[in-house]
Amino acid sequence: MAYGGYSYLDYKYVPDKDNDFVVLFWAKGSVGIEKIAEAIAAESSVGSWTKLNTMNDRVWKHYRARVCWVGKVTPNSGFIKIAYPLEHFDLKNISQFQASVLGNVFGLKELDELYVFDISFPITYQRQFSGPLKGVGGLRRMVKTIKSGRPHIGTIVKPKVGLTPKEWAHVAYEAYMGGLDLVKDDENLVDQDFCKWKDRLHETVKAIERAGDETGQNHLYSCNVSDRYSRMIERIDYLNEMGLQNNIVVMLDVYVMGMSTLQDVLEHTKKYNFATHGHRAGYAAVNRGNFGINFQVYDKFYRLLGIDQMHIGTGVAKMEGKPLMIKRLHDIADQFRLDEKMYLGSLPMEFAPHINPMFSIASGGLNAGIVDAAIALHGKDTILQAGAGVHGHPGGTRKGAMSMRQAVDAVMNGVSAPEYAKKHPELAQALKTWGYVNPQGVLKELEYATKNTERLTQIALKKGRWKMASI
Amino acid sequence: MAYGGYSYLDYKYVPDKDNDFVVLFWAKGSVGIEKIAEAIAAESSVGSWTKLNTMNDRVWKHYRARVCWVGKVTPNSGFIKIAYPLEHFDLKNISQFQASVLGNVFGLKELDELYVFDISFPITYQRQFSGPLKGVGGLRRMVKTIKSGRPHIGTIVKPKVGLTPKEWAHVAYEAYMGGLDLVKDDENLVDQDFCKWKDRLHETVKAIERAGDETGQNHLYSCNVSDRYSRMIERIDYLNEMGLQNNIVVMLDVYVMGMSTLQDVLEHTKKYNFATHGHRAGYAAVNRGNFGINFQVYDKFYRLLGIDQMHIGTGVAKMEGKPLMIKRLHDIADQFRLDEKMYLGSLPMEFAPHINPMFSIASGGLNAGIVDAAIALHGKDTILQAGAGVHGHPGGTRKGAMSMRQAVDAVMNGVSAPEYAKKHPELAQALKTWGYVNPQGVLKELEYATKNTERLTQIALKKGRWKMASI
Repeated sequence: MAYGGYSYLDYKYVPDKDNDFVVLFWAKGSVGIEKIAEAIAAESSVGSWTKLNTMNDRVWKHYRARVCWVGKVTPNSGFIKIAYPLEHFDLKNISQFQASVLGNVFGLKELDELYVFDISFPITYQRQFSGPLKGVGGLRRMVKTIKSGRPHIGTIVKPKVGLTPKEWAHVAYEAYMGGLDLVKDDENLVDQDFCKWKDRLHETVKAIERAGDETGQNHLYSCNVSDRYSRMIERIDYLNEMGLQNNIVVMLDVYVMGMSTLQDVLEHTKKYNFATHGHRAGYAAVNRGNFGINFQVYDKFYRLLGIDQMHIGTGVAKMEGKPLMIKRLHDIADQFRLDEKMYLGSLPMEFAPHINPMFSIASGGLNAGIVDAAIALHGKDTILQAGAGVHGHPGGTRKGAMSMRQAVDAVMNGVSAPEYAKKHPELAQALKTWGYVNPQGVLKELEYATKNTERLTQIALKKGRWKMASI
Repeated sequence: MAYGGYSYLDYKYVPDKDNDFVVLFWAKGSVGIEKIAEAIAAESSVGSWTKLNTMNDRVWKHYRARVCWVGKVTPNSGFIKIAYPLEHFDLKNISQFQASVLGNVFGLKELDELYVFDISFPITYQRQFSGPLKGVGGLRRMVKTIKSGRPHIGTIVKPKVGLTPKEWAHVAYEAYMGGLDLVKDDENLVDQDFCKWKDRLHETVKAIERAGDETGQNHLYSCNVSDRYSRMIERIDYLNEMGLQNNIVVMLDVYVMGMSTLQDVLEHTKKYNFATHGHRAGYAAVNRGNFGINFQVYDKFYRLLGIDQMHIGTGVAKMEGKPLMIKRLHDIADQFRLDEKMYLGSLPMEFAPHINPMFSIASGGLNAGIVDAAIALHGKDTILQAGAGVHGHPGGTRKGAMSMRQAVDAVMNGVSAPEYAKKHPELAQALKTWGYVNPQGVLKELEYATKNTERLTQIALKKGRWKMASI
């Protein structure tokens, strides 16, 4: 409830890009959209369901949230922009930020839907973060691809769980020998009895050395340390004692571990000069729901905190995520100025200039037949990861890896995969097994969505499909 | 995809309560429900979207998930039970558990809805956890309510943010003087410039001492330490140095901070013999969505990990949560045997006998007029927290606190609030301001939902409202 005669609605208010957070919500409920907006602003700043005797002018003036825009769609639904002053927050405490802006508001009884599309972070807030230590440039230096500028290529060893350390490392070796830069733990795999973390690490380091001797390349291993805080620190210390900075990318399952641990763990990896790999298992439960938070918000936090390479989906394979959203997540990862794109529910924002670009990872159902389309959408500054698309290749892991590398080489040579396959049997076999996705399809879809956003938004809203992110 | 000629569907399989996790899903998608079930089981255990050359008999036999039941509702939607063997998991690593069972499955493209209703944890898994250090009994000993068995009563100081430490502590003092046991930080408040954590703590300790001298009671302060891991540890160390075990309940915003930090932080609070308070800001974003996870799952983890008092909503005030679900969350907190209640999407489970009962907190929009109804639903083993219902009382905080205490005393004396109000003006004023919710209403709602679950479930499914939790 508002204070005195005042209201949280303040449509004349212009958010200050240096000092205000702006949050873009979609909401639908059992009362009018303005009332919903007021309730959200109150619950997430200084109000409650009834008038407070303990309220005063100073608090109201300095710490309240302001509803600066409401885009009504029906009487009880629409978009809402709320500005929060920096002073409201406990800086460097992301848990507090989440508890406030992404907290109790989701539980308000009068809501039937509440979705946070995007948040723009003020520059002053960003200054406290150091961003990626390595980022795109640093990772390219590790793999020596600065000159070629080609996408990095990786695989997730499969099956997800069950292989012994020796079996696991053998699969990794085969992948490196087939021309891959990176081998990664599945997110299901950390330190189970059948494949203890240290044993797997030691075997994989041997595989990296052996393969490196033969290929002359510097191969990487995204090593999953995700666990309770203390065990992650132990593992990172161990990696440091072994001096593996040049070959290990510390893999963190960032969404499930939570921001609280992540903030401290990333300071630890930076202290030791390790690159980091952000997996995002679980994010889709909030990203896709009619109550939820778009992954844009997390992607921004991960870049600010300093993940070096981060999963953003593929837009073309087994996981959710349409081309326009993938494009947006790429922009969040490596651009400095983000435009407003209402069709995606995206806000304009500038990253502070000291925040390095983060490398985006395309992963989830990729295979050599999709590489052309994936690069068309993701560009060359990306990391293409194929799991089953490597180990499911009829010729086995090494040939699967070769097919992926050949598909990338084809693009770098300006040749389509089917054309390149004429002289590259491993690629030919992959295309024969899984088919070929023409990049024109995804480009057309992207172009259509970009050009017709206004109209598509209106159509989506009429159908009640407000989640334009899924267009 | 399945392995060889085998399938993940195994309807004859009977989960082993000592060694299998059982997960109950609701799913809806673009393919048949059996195919959806297979895809979920594969993605969360040993499979992928295509056949793997690296798969073998040993892995398939030991580590795969088994779809042991499908309750088809339409060809493309229904309930699914999947059993996961203990061996699949990295024990003590809840991040890995989440990344696996609550991870990538939410992102599968063929899904339109995916909701985890409940998980039953095998006894063998539970043995590694120590549960609440204090729990219901320990907290009652701190407040000396073992004998009376009355509900504890608390308040959240409001406005949420903006008060100075002295202002804040003064409000706390007034609340204690009005007869409350517990004063709590708002989840928005940790260590902002306008009210630094240490300053607030020192002032509040003074208020506790001063009030205690006058009331003769031992008052509690749920002190919000939620932050990045390292700062939480610093704060808990500081509380320990000050020797505040008898008056401080360490408040943790458990959902936003994530399991990884929580596991370690709770070991720290236990080492120092502190009681803990679990706030759940943000949980509703997953609890309420058509993609999501029911809070039952978290509530179980929090008890196993050892939260002593935990928010579960009210069922009667401003936040979501229907009576039947609140009842279930109470059972999870303090019972040892949980029955199957399909209407709630709840699984049977036994808690290991060494896991203490956890105290449940009813909070969110309470006031003295709702106390009768809240106790009717929650029972007397509960902590009733009113924020604006105390500080919004026309007579101010102290009288608001008195009205809450009087409402509880009324119940303990077997008298209704309106009757008791005849001789208690503060209660009378609260009822006049906010009205009175008759406990018969909530009891009838609970009874009706309990007796007609089968029919209500069918009606809900016909309307496409599969989230029976919201009945």
